[in-house]
Amino acid sequence: MHAVPPLEQDQEIAGATLAAAPAQATHDAPVRDLRRVAIHPDYWYPLAWSHEVKRGKTLGVTFAGDPIVLARTESGKVFALEDRCAHRQVPLHQGMVDGESIRCGYHGWTYDCSGKCIDVPYLGRERLPNGVRSYPCQEVEGLIFVFPGDAALAAERPLPGFRSVSDPKYKTRRFGRPVKCHYSFMHENLMDMNHQFLHRRQMGSMRARSVGRRRGEGWVEVDYTFARVEGQQPFGEAMVFGERRKTGGFNHKDVMTIRTEYPYQTLQIRNDEQTLVMDLWIIYVPLDREQRTNRTFGLLSIRKPGIPGVMNLAWPLLVWFTERIFKEDREIVEAEQRAHDSQGADWNHEVFPVINDLRALLRECGAPDPVVGAGTGNTAVIRFWDSRHGDPLAKT
Amino acid sequence: MHAVPPLEQDQEIAGATLAAAPAQATHDAPVRDLRRVAIHPDYWYPLAWSHEVKRGKTLGVTFAGDPIVLARTESGKVFALEDRCAHRQVPLHQGMVDGESIRCGYHGWTYDCSGKCIDVPYLGRERLPNGVRSYPCQEVEGLIFVFPGDAALAAERPLPGFRSVSDPKYKTRRFGRPVKCHYSFMHENLMDMNHQFLHRRQMGSMRARSVGRRRGEGWVEVDYTFARVEGQQPFGEAMVFGERRKTGGFNHKDVMTIRTEYPYQTLQIRNDEQTLVMDLWIIYVPLDREQRTNRTFGLLSIRKPGIPGVMNLAWPLLVWFTERIFKEDREIVEAEQRAHDSQGADWNHEVFPVINDLRALLRECGAPDPVVGAGTGNTAVIRFWDSRHGDPLAKT
Amino acid sequence: MHAVPPLEQDQEIAGATLAAAPAQATHDAPVRDLRRVAIHPDYWYPLAWSHEVKRGKTLGVTFAGDPIVLARTESGKVFALEDRCAHRQVPLHQGMVDGESIRCGYHGWTYDCSGKCIDVPYLGRERLPNGVRSYPCQEVEGLIFVFPGDAALAAERPLPGFRSVSDPKYKTRRFGRPVKCHYSFMHENLMDMNHQFLHRRQMGSMRARSVGRRRGEGWVEVDYTFARVEGQQPFGEAMVFGERRKTGGFNHKDVMTIRTEYPYQTLQIRNDEQTLVMDLWIIYVPLDREQRTNRTFGLLSIRKPGIPGVMNLAWPLLVWFTERIFKEDREIVEAEQRAHDSQGADWNHEVFPVINDLRALLRECGAPDPVVGAGTGNTAVIRFWDSRHGDPLAKT
Repeated sequence: MHAVPPLEQDQEIAGATLAAAPAQATHDAPVRDLRRVAIHPDYWYPLAWSHEVKRGKTLGVTFAGDPIVLARTESGKVFALEDRCAHRQVPLHQGMVDGESIRCGYHGWTYDCSGKCIDVPYLGRERLPNGVRSYPCQEVEGLIFVFPGDAALAAERPLPGFRSVSDPKYKTRRFGRPVKCHYSFMHENLMDMNHQFLHRRQMGSMRARSVGRRRGEGWVEVDYTFARVEGQQPFGEAMVFGERRKTGGFNHKDVMTIRTEYPYQTLQIRNDEQTLVMDLWIIYVPLDREQRTNRTFGLLSIRKPGIPGVMNLAWPLLVWFTERIFKEDREIVEAEQRAHDSQGADWNHEVFPVINDLRALLRECGAPDPVVGAGTGNTAVIRFWDSRHGDPLAKT
Repeated sequence: MHAVPPLEQDQEIAGATLAAAPAQATHDAPVRDLRRVAIHPDYWYPLAWSHEVKRGKTLGVTFAGDPIVLARTESGKVFALEDRCAHRQVPLHQGMVDGESIRCGYHGWTYDCSGKCIDVPYLGRERLPNGVRSYPCQEVEGLIFVFPGDAALAAERPLPGFRSVSDPKYKTRRFGRPVKCHYSFMHENLMDMNHQFLHRRQMGSMRARSVGRRRGEGWVEVDYTFARVEGQQPFGEAMVFGERRKTGGFNHKDVMTIRTEYPYQTLQIRNDEQTLVMDLWIIYVPLDREQRTNRTFGLLSIRKPGIPGVMNLAWPLLVWFTERIFKEDREIVEAEQRAHDSQGADWNHEVFPVINDLRALLRECGAPDPVVGAGTGNTAVIRFWDSRHGDPLAKT
Repeated sequence: MHAVPPLEQDQEIAGATLAAAPAQATHDAPVRDLRRVAIHPDYWYPLAWSHEVKRGKTLGVTFAGDPIVLARTESGKVFALEDRCAHRQVPLHQGMVDGESIRCGYHGWTYDCSGKCIDVPYLGRERLPNGVRSYPCQEVEGLIFVFPGDAALAAERPLPGFRSVSDPKYKTRRFGRPVKCHYSFMHENLMDMNHQFLHRRQMGSMRARSVGRRRGEGWVEVDYTFARVEGQQPFGEAMVFGERRKTGGFNHKDVMTIRTEYPYQTLQIRNDEQTLVMDLWIIYVPLDREQRTNRTFGLLSIRKPGIPGVMNLAWPLLVWFTERIFKEDREIVEAEQRAHDSQGADWNHEVFPVINDLRALLRECGAPDPVVGAGTGNTAVIRFWDSRHGDPLAKT
């Protein structure tokens, strides 16, 4: 399903030659409006932090407009069901956890972790309706992952790895929040490091230089080095990039690699000894059916410095620094989404080749456009559910 | 116009047999989406409490999207007009009552209680435009009733009766407020007493048992008895259902009868001596054109206990109790409406026969679907008005 | 392009004869719904007060849905550009003024006052994209005027004159704010002085009498005299109309002339010595694409009384008085817009000939209806821009 783009050799791309390729990419034969490409559901997506789903409690979330209830049972297990009672479609998250099952708060219909209806208080047990759709669900590193697509593919599709998060040499900050834009703006924002201009107040005048890019099946990545052209290195930045140096911060031999491996994104910084000093994993999960909002989940791991305790002392400053950066990014990508809404189309004129590679990747890997006349996404949900469970009112 | 369903005999319906009939009702040939069936306008609907329309003042209300101004004249009479000045369509309720007439607040056009324009300050009286639509209007038991449909039918269509309200053996509480859902959700909510589960925190674990149902032309009703399965009887409930008993509340011989007599609904509780101990009359008046909101008007009459004054002492508690119950109901029916909005269709899978009877009744008695190509509801309003008054600018 | 209506002689129009003409005007062959007629862009429109655009700062505004950035350079000059970066369409007003140019806040693309892109920090200067649309822009009397239509016509189209504003015999108040209605409601509101009824609490019971009306190419005007039928003259009104007189205010020989000279409006009061005692210039600039909101800019000049300082002492009262009047007007025209939105059409039944003249003028002078199939306004913007600058990514 995914086209295999030719693997390019690393190549030095000087600023002065960047503008050679771009126009073609935007003037091709009709392409899908990237801002309307739905994310592909056949991957594992985090829908909540573990701490948001307390024992014996529920949490209502959405994936691309589909309502999903997360419930943690008395024994501590988390499961994920369609967040609509089979009876009258009120959200199950307004109900209650009862042992290892969940009861709708309206008339008490009860479902187990597979979505099977196991009790209607005023019906005989031999006549119960079938229930609601369930979703594969796993907890990893404080995140609750759900597989919203074809459940038959869940087992073979790997969860992302989080090596630095579990490595005691690193300290990890978890962050993120809803952002009112299509997920593609988020990928482009992070991958195009020329947007350091946006953070000029926080990061001084850093000049990014792309020093290589690579593509493969389902991924794109780019390497940058940085030079400071003016201004002092802020302290938060020093925390991330390492100790202050006489030259004013970032060593020109440090390399930042940003990679979109669909649908996830990573940003890694290695110093000139090839030590991984910063390791960010991030994902942008669509919330609404139009996918014009996303919830960002980020895990930012920083390698601890040699002196014990220094990291903990400086941590609040790092938090403040990253929050400021993330707020600026959020404001600008939301402005991009508003511009798209107002224009009704993507007018992007990209001049940076790696971003055009990324845009092609997101188009190729996204969900296929819905077939005209095949009904709405809602209908598709029902069909899928029917094919697994049969008619919800049929007697088992 | 209303189909006459066969009158069924009272029949004992044990829980275990309830699920026999339901699937058919939802799998019939295409039926109207109940949540899009407009309420029939040829009935008397309360649009305000009497105290909301002070002497010499106006109140702007709506019925199914039609703006209506209620005005109380200096002499105390209430009348109802289309809430749009014939001139520039600004709401007349922003104007002023002038003796027995109403003046638009913009240029001073003046209408009498029949909607006739009787003055334009800058026009000669012999050249006045005709005016605006008027509505039949009556005040009963603190409610202002309007007949929004064909005025020619108003005289023959009876107002609802309120026997307990005017009976000194009862004390009546007036309540209600806007609720963001289609009126049909309200009828189903009250009639399906299995939803006591929703009120488990207020009412303990009551188990409703339907013991009979009946249908006739324009009405459906069902009888329940109740048993408490666990928990203590709350005090507010004791107020409604009578004194505490050793068995823990509701006597299993008390009978609750819930009846929808289109478009009104009643709930009555009789004790084992056939005394009416509680009598609720309630109506859900659509506010917006899509009829996705309603304003509820309820009159709850409680038979006074033998000892004088006990009722007044306990009344604040009863108010609190009923407000809590009504709040829970409001939240769940609003969740149903949101689910319908999101799904775009009614996915209800009903397993309780009386609710399927009720749903059929509401479909049959509702307004006919608008004929395609016949224009909007707005157009219909104008035509009706024109046919009675002629062109608004024609000279009389 | 503008039809030339026959010039009518001044004519006395007694109230009793006003209703003769109106019905025809509304029963003509299909006419454009006035509330959907777009204002004609080929005029100078104020988009901000001068003090809103500080030196070295930007301001984002809109004209009929088109985003425009106003920027004041270090040297104090104001220029106006399309408020969308050519790269990713984020608003330029979120960027920064840099000397005499403006830099997008995201990746630092830089534009001069003509909209030409003069720097992309990571591209060579010989390969820059072309830039964004610019608008003719002038500052007059504290207002920043922009020409949003065909720039080739800007030089020949005169700016409005403001004689009283620059005359030391007058003191001028600047006022205005966004109003949620189509600009046509504003013109009709001011020109129909029978709406004094709306201000009965502020202005007593003034009775307007229209004593003449005139039409010409692109303009309509009407004269009024006033009589007080009851009540005392408020102090603020005395400020505007002159000293109190024994007859209770307005001298019946004072004449108020209201003129719409497309797209501007003026109201002037001359006393019986033909001295201009009040001079209002006002404009209603559409904000959104549907033109259902406008921002009003008003310059109200009052001739100073003989005694120095009296005007300054009384000024706060005048401000209060005019704010109250303007608030009442705003509320009623917003009610008209809501009525139009709800009805989906203009049901106006006008009985006052000068308002029918005005309505015809606004229809004739408005922008032509968009040709079906010719694309959206957005597309038109792009085409216009392309025709002047060529493809934004073409190399110069």
